[in-house]
Amino acid sequence: MDFELSPELVQLRDRVAAFIRDEVIPAENGAGDIQVLRDKARQAGIYGPQLPAEYGGLGLGTVAMCVLFEQAGRSLLGPLALHCAAPDEGNMHLLSLYATPEQRERYLRPLVEGKIRSCFAMTEPPPGAGSDPTMLLTRATRVDGGWEINGRKWFATGAEGSAFAIAMVISDPSVPAHKGVSMFLVPTDAPGFRLIRSVPTMGGHGGPGGHGEIDFDHLRVPDSAILGKLGDGFKMAQVRLTPARLTHCMRWMGVAQRSLDIAMAYAREREAFGKKLAQHQSIQWMIADSEIELHASRLMVMQAAWKHERGDDIRHESSICKVFVAEAVNRIIDRAVQICGALGVSTDTPLEHFYREARAFRIYDGPSEVHRMVIARNVLRSKG
Amino acid sequence: MDFELSPELVQLRDRVAAFIRDEVIPAENGAGDIQVLRDKARQAGIYGPQLPAEYGGLGLGTVAMCVLFEQAGRSLLGPLALHCAAPDEGNMHLLSLYATPEQRERYLRPLVEGKIRSCFAMTEPPPGAGSDPTMLLTRATRVDGGWEINGRKWFATGAEGSAFAIAMVISDPSVPAHKGVSMFLVPTDAPGFRLIRSVPTMGGHGGPGGHGEIDFDHLRVPDSAILGKLGDGFKMAQVRLTPARLTHCMRWMGVAQRSLDIAMAYAREREAFGKKLAQHQSIQWMIADSEIELHASRLMVMQAAWKHERGDDIRHESSICKVFVAEAVNRIIDRAVQICGALGVSTDTPLEHFYREARAFRIYDGPSEVHRMVIARNVLRSKG
Amino acid sequence: MDFELSPELVQLRDRVAAFIRDEVIPAENGAGDIQVLRDKARQAGIYGPQLPAEYGGLGLGTVAMCVLFEQAGRSLLGPLALHCAAPDEGNMHLLSLYATPEQRERYLRPLVEGKIRSCFAMTEPPPGAGSDPTMLLTRATRVDGGWEINGRKWFATGAEGSAFAIAMVISDPSVPAHKGVSMFLVPTDAPGFRLIRSVPTMGGHGGPGGHGEIDFDHLRVPDSAILGKLGDGFKMAQVRLTPARLTHCMRWMGVAQRSLDIAMAYAREREAFGKKLAQHQSIQWMIADSEIELHASRLMVMQAAWKHERGDDIRHESSICKVFVAEAVNRIIDRAVQICGALGVSTDTPLEHFYREARAFRIYDGPSEVHRMVIARNVLRSKG
Amino acid sequence: MDFELSPELVQLRDRVAAFIRDEVIPAENGAGDIQVLRDKARQAGIYGPQLPAEYGGLGLGTVAMCVLFEQAGRSLLGPLALHCAAPDEGNMHLLSLYATPEQRERYLRPLVEGKIRSCFAMTEPPPGAGSDPTMLLTRATRVDGGWEINGRKWFATGAEGSAFAIAMVISDPSVPAHKGVSMFLVPTDAPGFRLIRSVPTMGGHGGPGGHGEIDFDHLRVPDSAILGKLGDGFKMAQVRLTPARLTHCMRWMGVAQRSLDIAMAYAREREAFGKKLAQHQSIQWMIADSEIELHASRLMVMQAAWKHERGDDIRHESSICKVFVAEAVNRIIDRAVQICGALGVSTDTPLEHFYREARAFRIYDGPSEVHRMVIARNVLRSKG
Repeated sequence: MDFELSPELVQLRDRVAAFIRDEVIPAENGAGDIQVLRDKARQAGIYGPQLPAEYGGLGLGTVAMCVLFEQAGRSLLGPLALHCAAPDEGNMHLLSLYATPEQRERYLRPLVEGKIRSCFAMTEPPPGAGSDPTMLLTRATRVDGGWEINGRKWFATGAEGSAFAIAMVISDPSVPAHKGVSMFLVPTDAPGFRLIRSVPTMGGHGGPGGHGEIDFDHLRVPDSAILGKLGDGFKMAQVRLTPARLTHCMRWMGVAQRSLDIAMAYAREREAFGKKLAQHQSIQWMIADSEIELHASRLMVMQAAWKHERGDDIRHESSICKVFVAEAVNRIIDRAVQICGALGVSTDTPLEHFYREARAFRIYDGPSEVHRMVIARNVLRSKG
Repeated sequence: MDFELSPELVQLRDRVAAFIRDEVIPAENGAGDIQVLRDKARQAGIYGPQLPAEYGGLGLGTVAMCVLFEQAGRSLLGPLALHCAAPDEGNMHLLSLYATPEQRERYLRPLVEGKIRSCFAMTEPPPGAGSDPTMLLTRATRVDGGWEINGRKWFATGAEGSAFAIAMVISDPSVPAHKGVSMFLVPTDAPGFRLIRSVPTMGGHGGPGGHGEIDFDHLRVPDSAILGKLGDGFKMAQVRLTPARLTHCMRWMGVAQRSLDIAMAYAREREAFGKKLAQHQSIQWMIADSEIELHASRLMVMQAAWKHERGDDIRHESSICKVFVAEAVNRIIDRAVQICGALGVSTDTPLEHFYREARAFRIYDGPSEVHRMVIARNVLRSKG
Repeated sequence: MDFELSPELVQLRDRVAAFIRDEVIPAENGAGDIQVLRDKARQAGIYGPQLPAEYGGLGLGTVAMCVLFEQAGRSLLGPLALHCAAPDEGNMHLLSLYATPEQRERYLRPLVEGKIRSCFAMTEPPPGAGSDPTMLLTRATRVDGGWEINGRKWFATGAEGSAFAIAMVISDPSVPAHKGVSMFLVPTDAPGFRLIRSVPTMGGHGGPGGHGEIDFDHLRVPDSAILGKLGDGFKMAQVRLTPARLTHCMRWMGVAQRSLDIAMAYAREREAFGKKLAQHQSIQWMIADSEIELHASRLMVMQAAWKHERGDDIRHESSICKVFVAEAVNRIIDRAVQICGALGVSTDTPLEHFYREARAFRIYDGPSEVHRMVIARNVLRSKG
Repeated sequence: MDFELSPELVQLRDRVAAFIRDEVIPAENGAGDIQVLRDKARQAGIYGPQLPAEYGGLGLGTVAMCVLFEQAGRSLLGPLALHCAAPDEGNMHLLSLYATPEQRERYLRPLVEGKIRSCFAMTEPPPGAGSDPTMLLTRATRVDGGWEINGRKWFATGAEGSAFAIAMVISDPSVPAHKGVSMFLVPTDAPGFRLIRSVPTMGGHGGPGGHGEIDFDHLRVPDSAILGKLGDGFKMAQVRLTPARLTHCMRWMGVAQRSLDIAMAYAREREAFGKKLAQHQSIQWMIADSEIELHASRLMVMQAAWKHERGDDIRHESSICKVFVAEAVNRIIDRAVQICGALGVSTDTPLEHFYREARAFRIYDGPSEVHRMVIARNVLRSKG
């Protein structure tokens, strides 16, 4: 066993941390231009930690990615600046694994280069597929020269202004969902692609492009729009989502760690009842519990990342990380708000934004309830 | 012992409930005009539950008030429509107890009639008085013909557009705070009264007028601006805040009950994994826990209201209610969001707004931490 | 609404409190002779709060009963001393409602007079009826001159040394359980009644007679052994259990309140890190939370008791009380142990016994899981 | 980073697991003779994982120790069988680091060989040193030819029948405790050593020798009784306690994992409400949460063990592990009891014993409250 990060990774991590501190956080409240930040990130040699080297990225493995993502996550702008934000990050990962050479040129290259944005259209409004992906209603029917897609999606993050969507669609209703669903690459300017709205949420947006509600209305695509193999949609979704849970966790832990840091800085200065807040046990308890949970979160995600990098199946570990980290991050931010009191609910610190934005993390990529069900079934099947 | 509400009160409660359902909730998303709603409330005979009958209110006692406030609270507009929203509600209560006849005519009457709004300026930004009221820095100095006030306040809810503020100010720094603080009635158009900004918060505003940050800059007021007795500021603040905690609790319980109702309606319809959400134990658990907490909350607040109406000291009970209800309300809304999933974080239901708005309730009127300290001291002093 | 106890009840409550303090608690560690304590209780005029006056009891209603049971519950011996301990208390209640004159003379009178003890044989070891009462396996078959009972029961509290059992038995397997189960009065000296053992538990015993595991082996009883009407077993069990949950709650709240008192007495004296434990916020938090939960528990049980006394259906409220109070009592005792540290896990205080004994309260009379399911279903059916 | 255990360690771990399963658990309910089990452990090549090879142990480092201790911990007899139970384990560690050659021959060798037992006398009854070690009252005074010790200790685990105690004693009251406390090796047959009693606790004993209350009454020891350097008591206590927290954690995680396994085996078989318990979400939730907490616990302890083995200061990590694991273990056992229902509180499974025994783990070696205080101070000092 060895819990040590390589010296190169430590150095890289510290470089990302410095970049976030010196370049990104100061740009938070202004009209932060992402392109400017990306140029600076390129100059700093930290652009695209997860991107293939051939596309100008750092080509890092899962472990190093996760370490850097936490640092990038200290600002909600950080992952955008390093071009490792959802959903583009996961979509690029998917395309790099499954896209044909043509699909690469058309979609992956400009996406990697930051010239276009993308979205992932899986979730459907009721009565379609929410936490239960087998309830998918959107359907592609064979037509002359390709497929016709009909259905409704929502919470397609980044949809507004994106160049294309990766859409999860039933291509064969006669077989179970895990064999009859496929992924299609759908240009957003195709006739029949209609962005109904960006669904307003408690978090604001959390990135460019909002959370789109999309109508596929007799939308036609050729066979070449299929990503990967016909019928492999569920399998590929797992390939996309399993590591994506880890990178989500690490980005959010950056937010949580920063929240704790903000609260501690306040607690060291602010007085009440005759001493600094930091000297009150009720405040100390919140700080200690947040530290404990950050420590546990970090170890669990790193272990899963290490296992993923080895090529092992990490669905069980990734479910565990998702439940624990999503709930811990929400508690940690909540405690930071409480420590800061009135200041904490004001926009004078980023805590209130973090609080609103993080709430959805307990829901997307599988709500806690679904992962607990999965974890229990795994354990009941295999242990004891 | 008798836990039954009088038939008259039950009838009145149901009338408020119907009004909120039929008039107020439909007005939530439109450009709800409060004056129109208030006129309708007057016609429905439910306007001003807590206002003296001589001013056109219902003149109800604490118990009946609390019962109606829960129903009014089902919409964030409800208390405004019935003219029983904070801070005007508490300010009218204070003025009705302590104002001189002149102060009544100048401030109370137009306030009761809804012609003007008011704010309460107690909380100060760091390093001033936050959860520890003895750290007050704003100060009134004796000058020829009255007082000169200097200092900074924030989170003066409703400040923007209000006609006057009730300001907590040190009038005698040579004695301890509980004897040296006074309340002043300060017109907002007085020279030296400067509204710096409405502090943006995670909740939005929660009512007209925002949460003002105010600068008192060599502001001069005459002796007649003193409310009640010089030096009685802390005593009067207790008189204002103690029942205000109960009415806050009941308004928030209306929000919590409505959140649960919204979540249950969704859970009865939405399917996942082969059955309705309502048939999944994980959802049932959330519903059961919310029901339990609402039941406990209601009984605790009603008991304190009954005791208050009898004239007994309820500081201990009101601290207990404040901690329990504020934390329960936040959990109940949180569970409702979780049950509704993606819908819950969207603005398609009011849940996300409730979630943001309710967070501050664990902080204002004494954060949970201060009340726990107070409760423990009470118990340690008196029992066992 | 009126939350006040009558002066007579207050006086009676204080008399019970004094009796427990002066007579019962001092007898806890010695060879406490229950008969001696019962004689003293009779002299003090507090014997049998719930027993009919004609049998020498106080004949109190549910509200008064609950108030006194909390005081009696401050010692695990208290309910025995006042003859209001489970299971005799519930069994006497059942017999007083359903027993024939002959059954009264044979079973109820000597039970009330404390000459015999009884047990209630409902729960069965796996695969029989545990938390799901419809899984009952014990069966009575019609035979010449009566019935033959076969089956296995366990956790029949008080079985060892008891004179008779009230047994829940399937009398008609052709109909659903709620119509085909009956109660039989079974003398423990009948041939075929075999006490296999008193099941040792973490709590020790919690009263005389242990938790019996019983074999009914071709046990024969006449028709006159049926209690109430044939097939009414489930209905009568509800009549027994619904108020029994309240009285359990109140007895356990006595234990919880005493635990808090013991912990506070210790916290006031014991020093650590330069001040009394009672001055540390971490200790204050535990005290405050326990006080809050006791307050909520008391109000909820009293409301249900009041409603029961009026003759209303309280199944919903009694489920709510059972979940909340059972869990709160366990937390309160746990905190008391923690406050007392090493002393708390030693037998030098009764806390460790309370801790062990109270654990089962979250399981018997319906585990928390079953009541949450019931509460959710009630709410989903009726509200919103 | 590398989370993989070496193949040798995996093999050794599996061997210990098999030994516990095949030899130790079957001996639990009988009159388990520890010497017989130790002989078998020697034959199996798993005796004394932490003992120096020169004394017949396996001479393993902290990482391997922790891995084996979890497996040993699956039975409360396991650590005794492998001779790695508290307090002997920690005492042997201390002696191997600080004992003089003579002390080694007299105390360490027979202890390692299992011919004698030892105890550690640090904790004092009120008003002495409990969770605050600076409150030590027991004192050694210089006398002719050595020292005279006077004072009272309790919770000296294993005292009854032990050959010697390692006693923490003030040797110089004129300096602060961390410089004025020393460790003395005190033979239990020395005049003035009086075992008052073994303090009965909720857990029973948890090993041979109980939790002794000891009076040092004018007990005389020579200078050669000092362990390590005079005045180094606190420093050496840290050396003993810091890794001891990890080994405690791992032993208790064995108990927790076994509890979960017992509960899952029951949940797979037992039916209620029409399906197996394992198919109810409320049961699945408990299983999932226990699995998550075990996973987090294991990673945190292993990381600290790895860091300890490298020679780094792990006081911060060991505090984090202590709080998290002690609380998690208690919750995991509690859930297992709840899943098993009536069976869970009976002695038919070891769960009830685990439940009672584990409670003290949240108190000894620093209660959760002290570690949270320490963790918060560390974080406030060093981060953000």
